[in-house]
Amino acid sequence: MKVRNLLGERLKHVSDDSQIESQILMTKGGYIKPVASGIYTLLPPAQRISKKIQEIVRSEMDRIDGQEVLFPVVMPASLWQSSGRYTSIGSEMVRFEDRGGNKMVLGMTHEEAAVHLADHIAKSYAQYPFMIYQLQTKFRDEPRARGGLIRVREFTMKDGYSFHTSQEDLEKYYARAYEAYVRIFKRVGAKNVIAVKSDSGMMGGNVSHEFMLLSDVGEDTLVICPTCGYSANMEVAECITKNEETAPAALEKRATPDYRTIEEVCAFLGKRPEGTAKAVVYAYNDTDKYVVVFVRGDTEVNETKLRNYLGREIHPATAIDPESGIVPGFIGGVNFPEGIDFVVDRSLAGLHDLVTGANEEGYHYTGFDFGRDFGRKFEYVDVAKARAGGICPVCGKPHLTIRKGIEVGNIFQLGDKYTKAMGMTYLDADNTEKHPIMGCYGIGIGRLMASVCQESRDEYGPIWPMSIAPWQVEVCNLRVTDEKVRARAEKIVDDLEKAGVEVLYDDREVRPGFMFADADLFGVPVRIVVSQKTEERGVVEVSTRDKSIKTEFAVGEAAERTVGLVRKLLAEYEV
Amino acid sequence: MKVRNLLGERLKHVSDDSQIESQILMTKGGYIKPVASGIYTLLPPAQRISKKIQEIVRSEMDRIDGQEVLFPVVMPASLWQSSGRYTSIGSEMVRFEDRGGNKMVLGMTHEEAAVHLADHIAKSYAQYPFMIYQLQTKFRDEPRARGGLIRVREFTMKDGYSFHTSQEDLEKYYARAYEAYVRIFKRVGAKNVIAVKSDSGMMGGNVSHEFMLLSDVGEDTLVICPTCGYSANMEVAECITKNEETAPAALEKRATPDYRTIEEVCAFLGKRPEGTAKAVVYAYNDTDKYVVVFVRGDTEVNETKLRNYLGREIHPATAIDPESGIVPGFIGGVNFPEGIDFVVDRSLAGLHDLVTGANEEGYHYTGFDFGRDFGRKFEYVDVAKARAGGICPVCGKPHLTIRKGIEVGNIFQLGDKYTKAMGMTYLDADNTEKHPIMGCYGIGIGRLMASVCQESRDEYGPIWPMSIAPWQVEVCNLRVTDEKVRARAEKIVDDLEKAGVEVLYDDREVRPGFMFADADLFGVPVRIVVSQKTEERGVVEVSTRDKSIKTEFAVGEAAERTVGLVRKLLAEYEV
Repeated sequence: MKVRNLLGERLKHVSDDSQIESQILMTKGGYIKPVASGIYTLLPPAQRISKKIQEIVRSEMDRIDGQEVLFPVVMPASLWQSSGRYTSIGSEMVRFEDRGGNKMVLGMTHEEAAVHLADHIAKSYAQYPFMIYQLQTKFRDEPRARGGLIRVREFTMKDGYSFHTSQEDLEKYYARAYEAYVRIFKRVGAKNVIAVKSDSGMMGGNVSHEFMLLSDVGEDTLVICPTCGYSANMEVAECITKNEETAPAALEKRATPDYRTIEEVCAFLGKRPEGTAKAVVYAYNDTDKYVVVFVRGDTEVNETKLRNYLGREIHPATAIDPESGIVPGFIGGVNFPEGIDFVVDRSLAGLHDLVTGANEEGYHYTGFDFGRDFGRKFEYVDVAKARAGGICPVCGKPHLTIRKGIEVGNIFQLGDKYTKAMGMTYLDADNTEKHPIMGCYGIGIGRLMASVCQESRDEYGPIWPMSIAPWQVEVCNLRVTDEKVRARAEKIVDDLEKAGVEVLYDDREVRPGFMFADADLFGVPVRIVVSQKTEERGVVEVSTRDKSIKTEFAVGEAAERTVGLVRKLLAEYEV
Repeated sequence: MKVRNLLGERLKHVSDDSQIESQILMTKGGYIKPVASGIYTLLPPAQRISKKIQEIVRSEMDRIDGQEVLFPVVMPASLWQSSGRYTSIGSEMVRFEDRGGNKMVLGMTHEEAAVHLADHIAKSYAQYPFMIYQLQTKFRDEPRARGGLIRVREFTMKDGYSFHTSQEDLEKYYARAYEAYVRIFKRVGAKNVIAVKSDSGMMGGNVSHEFMLLSDVGEDTLVICPTCGYSANMEVAECITKNEETAPAALEKRATPDYRTIEEVCAFLGKRPEGTAKAVVYAYNDTDKYVVVFVRGDTEVNETKLRNYLGREIHPATAIDPESGIVPGFIGGVNFPEGIDFVVDRSLAGLHDLVTGANEEGYHYTGFDFGRDFGRKFEYVDVAKARAGGICPVCGKPHLTIRKGIEVGNIFQLGDKYTKAMGMTYLDADNTEKHPIMGCYGIGIGRLMASVCQESRDEYGPIWPMSIAPWQVEVCNLRVTDEKVRARAEKIVDDLEKAGVEVLYDDREVRPGFMFADADLFGVPVRIVVSQKTEERGVVEVSTRDKSIKTEFAVGEAAERTVGLVRKLLAEYEV
């Protein structure tokens, strides 16, 4: 492929809409062009990378006995009604009517389609387990598309669905899928990917893992223990706080006029936030009732954990009904109003001398003890956010770190949620009808490509791993008007292509600086420069995009040695 | 791959919804499963075939310098408004609003997306020509999906778009695309494919060709000259009729009570249909006006040609307004009513003694001559249907045949319709802004797969060409309980797989007849049967699905000779 024929342009500047480096570089380099918010056309270099990633994903899915199928993008609403998700999923699912007035949806995931396919086919236990997967376009009407291909509305995804006759069998397969994912990320050259325990969200099921590429631009917050390797998405990370038992004290009502926040009250009373019971008010989405969450004054509420504990959707209460009995700024455990739900976080366990609101304008109490003074039946539960320096729930060391990550893949144990709802059964060995147990396994191809770019780049452009690079070698001809130089460059291109190497050839009459700037944006791993100077010296300049190699090859062995270099670099991504 | 692990089931019977053989066989064989009208899930065998076809298409597109990109499935309506097709295309285009209230469409073709991509990138004449293509899911809300994958609503399509600075350059590239298509159909094993001139329809542009797989179940009617090879879609086929000049006669009014049809009038007056002027009444779609078409009594009106001639949409008039002056059954060239549009087909040229209606209930005229008696300015135009035995417009021989065909691909010369409407320009060598000229090139992957099945099958199942077969060899183990037989079969499977052959292995404990019935439905080109009997004799049975080969290989050389056979069969599809 010649650069002069390649469709696309390399830009000096991009608009301010570009928020993160990979987006800026992939826009500058002519990889992607926006068509609408969160909807892109992939230009040839991006499509080449995408295809290579897809082939790696395919080969790993086949290796764990996956069978490739193709589900539809457009599905009848009835399929999603049968699982209950037609109503439970909000406006991120596109719904429309076809010309016959039938309700249809655009697939944003394909559990229903997988069950529809397997139903009536996998009728006997002897046919289990099996896994089917596809590589297909999906559409999710994200409210905030951002970061180029990192968070889009339309995307190419590999999604797989496994079916089992027991939880044990699912777990065995889940472990194989986990290993396949580890291999995929290694093979595509994503270096800092970790698996974290995660919230299953709208997918249902219990155990799930997200594969996170650690990156400051990630939207997910991760809790990691550098001592033992424990890691979890903040959404589900356990929060452990060690409270030294404080001596009991007598309840004492204190006037705290105009002191409402933890900081103000602590400053006024000469207490530390760790000795206070903070009250945070939420409202249920489906009623106008409130739920008050008590956490230790220096901790925050983890809303996902709270939601999971309550089993209901909630949101922070912004304006509080004055009739409710809740007195904002002075909410506390003494005289807590009747009829208001409450949750007490375990960060408060063992504390006997707490500062808490008096549920009365202008007053707090000191000496509060939940067990002694709250006057309600309650249990300590875990709904607080883990934080840096916190205690690891696995090894107990207090060195938790907080990192940001981009979710590049996920695996879920779904249980029988879908097969039960949709009435899919098989005949077990004991002659009884049972619902199969499912797992599901996703990887966003475009997001993975952008994430690798985000991780592997310099200020001038992407540094593509050899395994997914759009081309393996770029040949830069710095003097195309010189017949000898031209012949040399073309001979090398020709020899490389004959040896099966993918070559990008730049024979434009442009300044070397211009050509190299473009080459940096193409991010091709190996670069060969042919110029009048090198031709006179009987060599070509060879370097790698990551600057680890900068050398010369004699012209006679240039092609052969380059092939060797390409193979060596490819081998780095083999597993 | 083992049959026992393959997801899918082979059916004895299918529902009556299945209309054509390929649909019946692909349903019976576990290739496709309907999800909604015209929407299918592809099971593993179909997806394997689809991928092979896609790879062949890709390689031929790359060979004619195509660059693969990926356009979105979901596009903003604004893109289609800019070309004018948002309003000109009817309810076959799905329209919906996203969560932000933006009007969106599902892509049914991607001319607009291609122009959007190339616009502002291909700014200089020096960047032309180029061709971009994609393999992507499309959705067309067809009113009558039918025939399995032959006419669906959702489908995988290869669509390519070329851009040029002149009509000459487009024509040069168009010829290359034409040749690439010929190679593609040869390589996928579609035997009876011909290119016919066609109507450009909603795509616009002038010259276009459809590639038609000749088949009785095809929905298109083709006109073919066996003498010179001329071929055209009936929609555009020229109709040539040779009229011997008849002697002029005097106009004579004849009472023809109750004789309205050509047959009745001819029988009554003792004339032949070739000597009559038949009048057919159409109505414009956008007004309540009529247009009367006169054709020779033994010919039919070609509505597509009529539509193209008029440049307006029309439909046959069913109930005719009595106030209009038109007298059904007695319409003719004498006293033709004022204010009614008319068209005179050239099949009537040179006829001077015609039977025609008197435009008066119960009367016809004989001796009618359009030139002498019609009393209106008119020209003879070509709006009649070509027919079997008609005259070839190229070689003039009267041997035209009519065939049915399935459209498996099409290529269009689009001109500047889209670039002009969307305001895309480039700077030409003479420093002026010009609109690029476009071509476009489509192939439906699923339809091609089903068409090959339709063409290449017997009553028991598909006979897949080696180049696209889901597997290359099927090994049938007829005695899986016999350790020696099992070891033999597995050794052959293993040896073949090591040699890179794709093997389907059936080691189920089922009756031979059952196993062979399934194998026929899989349509794998080479079959190896291992049984107790063959094992005793030191051979395996080898046959081809098309029954052209039935032989035995000694066990020692079975794998090697099978590899040779596979290569030989593959070579048949090389170009």
